[in-house]
Amino acid sequence: MKISARNRLKGKIVEVKKGATTAHVRIDVGGTVMTASITNEAVDELALKVGQQALAVVKASDVMIAVDD
Amino acid sequence: MKISARNRLKGKIVEVKKGATTAHVRIDVGGTVMTASITNEAVDELALKVGQQALAVVKASDVMIAVDD
Amino acid sequence: MKISARNRLKGKIVEVKKGATTAHVRIDVGGTVMTASITNEAVDELALKVGQQALAVVKASDVMIAVDD
Amino acid sequence: MKISARNRLKGKIVEVKKGATTAHVRIDVGGTVMTASITNEAVDELALKVGQQALAVVKASDVMIAVDD
Amino acid sequence: MKISARNRLKGKIVEVKKGATTAHVRIDVGGTVMTASITNEAVDELALKVGQQALAVVKASDVMIAVDD
Amino acid sequence: MKISARNRLKGKIVEVKKGATTAHVRIDVGGTVMTASITNEAVDELALKVGQQALAVVKASDVMIAVDD
Repeated sequence: MKISARNRLKGKIVEVKKGATTAHVRIDVGGTVMTASITNEAVDELALKVGQQALAVVKASDVMIAVDD
Repeated sequence: MKISARNRLKGKIVEVKKGATTAHVRIDVGGTVMTASITNEAVDELALKVGQQALAVVKASDVMIAVDD
Repeated sequence: MKISARNRLKGKIVEVKKGATTAHVRIDVGGTVMTASITNEAVDELALKVGQQALAVVKASDVMIAVDD
Repeated sequence: MKISARNRLKGKIVEVKKGATTAHVRIDVGGTVMTASITNEAVDELALKVGQQALAVVKASDVMIAVDD
Repeated sequence: MKISARNRLKGKIVEVKKGATTAHVRIDVGGTVMTASITNEAVDELALKVGQQALAVVKASDVMIAVDD
Repeated sequence: MKISARNRLKGKIVEVKKGATTAHVRIDVGGTVMTASITNEAVDELALKVGQQALAVVKASDVMIAVDD
């Protein structure tokens, strides 16, 4: 499957924390740890676990730019 | 200003392309180029230009995880 | 690639309209036409064209529920 | 109320699962089950329950397109 | 129609600017001007124009919190 | 830090409710109470508490417009 989302950062999963319905998955992408808030069901379906290679995927319209004052 | 958004990736702006209302800003974060779709007004207000240090900022609920089949 | 996004609706592309930076892709999913606002670059990279089979993909946190009054 | 969101898919609610703060509502839209991650408060205010007719509503900028490799 | 989105701010439209595919609608909500980036089609369907009473609607998962340093 | 997000509404936090992974922060912006669904970690990092001055921040592409029928 190829997807239109422009941003795909390769990394390794460093934490999977399930909540009541929403899980937080942390993925180290080149030294920066990103946090993804996804459903518990997605964690189960993709069988996400610590140490696994994965991609953080973000749609371009969800990326903001910040600069120092 | 400190913001609740969990994901902030440091990089350098490599392209600023304004459209009629929406601009695409590309930022190199450690070798991966991210694309941000933001308003032309934001580009003007932040005076974004190629070569500038900046952050790509993403809310955790906008990050997906993908794995190879 | 498998992705965490929970919503994938199969359909056929019925319109591809590029703007200055942002394209609108319309896809018929079982009789309902969905509109996706994506980058022109994604349209080019995926070579999207009318008549093509495709999926509309949406993260669960981007779906709202509405009911009649 | 009329809303700018371009995507409204009619269906029937098949599951309502509340978490600590976030609920998952599943809605069958023409044979495909969509998942909406919304607040518990929204579930209560709209009195969402299984069997109810409802709409899944998505903003065009939150829809991605995927194609097979 | 009642919608699950938690944030609805009443205001008056102060600018409608169409682009090639994406429009920017500015709405004054109690002295603060908000900007909505929506499709040109939505502007046409809702017949949005300057001076009109309208609501800015935002899903709770799209709201961030910021504080001063 | 200056951010590209177009919408920043000043207010006072009136409720902070942590869930298992996701918190709901309510902020009164000029008489309207907005709800932000953010991570528990963000609440801790920003030390958000009731009575605090804060901003609700929203990207323009996440704002919809609604009008009465």
